[in-house]
Amino acid sequence: MKGNITAKEIAKICGVSQATVSYVLNDRNDKRISEETKERVRKVIAEYHYVPNEAARSMRNKKCTAIGIVCAWDYSRQSFLDTIEGIGRYLDKMNYTLTLFYEKKEDTSPSYINSYKSNLIDGLIYISNKEHEKFVEPAEKYDIPYVVVCMDGVFSKKSPKPHAFDDVLEECVLFCRQKQLRTIRYFSVDNEGVFVNNKYPQFAEMAARIYPECDLEHVVIPVKYRCPENIYPGLKAYMDTHEFDIAISHNYDIGYLIQREILKSGVVLPQHPKNIFINNVDFYAITYPSVTGITIPYHEMGRYAAKLILSILAGKEEEFTYQEFTCRLIHRQSTIC
Amino acid sequence: MKGNITAKEIAKICGVSQATVSYVLNDRNDKRISEETKERVRKVIAEYHYVPNEAARSMRNKKCTAIGIVCAWDYSRQSFLDTIEGIGRYLDKMNYTLTLFYEKKEDTSPSYINSYKSNLIDGLIYISNKEHEKFVEPAEKYDIPYVVVCMDGVFSKKSPKPHAFDDVLEECVLFCRQKQLRTIRYFSVDNEGVFVNNKYPQFAEMAARIYPECDLEHVVIPVKYRCPENIYPGLKAYMDTHEFDIAISHNYDIGYLIQREILKSGVVLPQHPKNIFINNVDFYAITYPSVTGITIPYHEMGRYAAKLILSILAGKEEEFTYQEFTCRLIHRQSTIC
Repeated sequence: MKGNITAKEIAKICGVSQATVSYVLNDRNDKRISEETKERVRKVIAEYHYVPNEAARSMRNKKCTAIGIVCAWDYSRQSFLDTIEGIGRYLDKMNYTLTLFYEKKEDTSPSYINSYKSNLIDGLIYISNKEHEKFVEPAEKYDIPYVVVCMDGVFSKKSPKPHAFDDVLEECVLFCRQKQLRTIRYFSVDNEGVFVNNKYPQFAEMAARIYPECDLEHVVIPVKYRCPENIYPGLKAYMDTHEFDIAISHNYDIGYLIQREILKSGVVLPQHPKNIFINNVDFYAITYPSVTGITIPYHEMGRYAAKLILSILAGKEEEFTYQEFTCRLIHRQSTIC
Repeated sequence: MKGNITAKEIAKICGVSQATVSYVLNDRNDKRISEETKERVRKVIAEYHYVPNEAARSMRNKKCTAIGIVCAWDYSRQSFLDTIEGIGRYLDKMNYTLTLFYEKKEDTSPSYINSYKSNLIDGLIYISNKEHEKFVEPAEKYDIPYVVVCMDGVFSKKSPKPHAFDDVLEECVLFCRQKQLRTIRYFSVDNEGVFVNNKYPQFAEMAARIYPECDLEHVVIPVKYRCPENIYPGLKAYMDTHEFDIAISHNYDIGYLIQREILKSGVVLPQHPKNIFINNVDFYAITYPSVTGITIPYHEMGRYAAKLILSILAGKEEEFTYQEFTCRLIHRQSTIC
């Protein structure tokens, strides 16, 4: 079935020139073609399921219909899945395809550069979780149109930087102040110098401003490769020897490792210490006791990122209305007082 | 930077014909070109970062370098992520790109058909979780080369069907017999008539053969849309009114919902009833108490699927050595006796 009927054959069946078939196909209103002829051509095109050869069209138009998605090498599963689903379903509706690239650690010449140069992709959406500027360097260097999705929202080269997280960090600090949870421990994983999605600096700034009498400390768990088995020993050592009112964390599994350590001395509600996970992983909602978390609208962000890149490609970013996203704190059993 | 140097310009710089540049580029040993000339051309190609126009090449060769991945609409997150990572990293090494398609529920004309007809993809890898035959129907109809990845392993049209699960189901039944866990309840979710990854028939057959004196029942939770909130009420109603020795399940979150319900009457190890989740979701390993599960080598399966489809495309499936995968039972705290 791959051997499609050609435009030439369509033309022959309709008794028109091949150019006419092409004009009808591309809705060229600048060409004078009678409605009757248009209808005849369209009918035959439909009847024979004619599909113009995309490769040929791409070469003539110097335009393809694929967007590359570049996924950070140490991506968070849920953010990645929700985001690409949002992107993919929108692109599909717009007759674009989605080409997936994985970032390789310390890769100075990512394969998407060649894909762009070879007209296999039109632009990029980065799913980023740390130093965005370094991540998009190849796109900057080779002048590839791009958009970035991260926990803070979506941005392009020209758009303002997003701040989806600011409100939720403030909510956390206000909760601690209201419930007089004075000793706050913020846990991060240091993966050989890389802090994925680290929000500690903003949190500390917020705490100093809103709740200056709190006792806040940053507990850093250093690991060579980020997995629960490697995070656990350092975490346990700290928790065995320190007393505090509330744990805050944001890395994929550390929030539940903290919860598990709390549970080991017996499951009693309200639990002590309290536990807030400032990230969005479905599983935290169904554990017992369930862990307080936040919502991040990754699906909507993905959809919006797809809209934004297509607008950039159409040269219409100036008419595009930028959108801010908001994350919200969802209290569950781990913060019951 | 997108406006590459052309083959014509390369030829001019090297003082050779454009055909010679093309021969060097394609390693055409059937053409007589001196080593000296080859070296000169290669040097200039490298110096100017020349990339042949992929669209032009694709049209001439009637060959593209992308594989479409079709993901079942109600996919399991972990299997999907692990599998596409295995596929993606292998394809990238082989200079293929990965184009992602989402199955739409009741879509009779999926968009990947047009992508194939338009030479945008060379073949397909389906990530399937239920009726494989129905899923691959479009590929069969339009003669698109394909490979299927599922919990049982990987298969092509010609290869034998895989059986990665058989051993692990036997292991489960043997465990029940050995520990004299007589009343066994197998939990499934019925999503409007769709049973994702349902292994109950095989399990029941195995139980009848190996442990005929057991009391096995299939507990079916019907839902309209599969999410924890919808599964929970039916599950709770059953567990509140029934006594049994061990729960078996395989759907993404039902295994932990069962565990949570068990924990609500107090966390005491060894727990009663026992709980085995015959699927692979990382989170089950780090909960407290952790839930017994299985390993499914999705990453390796993805890599193997990518190798198999490239071998099919190269017309070399007959020389390909098919591989069987094995799933293994991993005992954790929920089956401590």
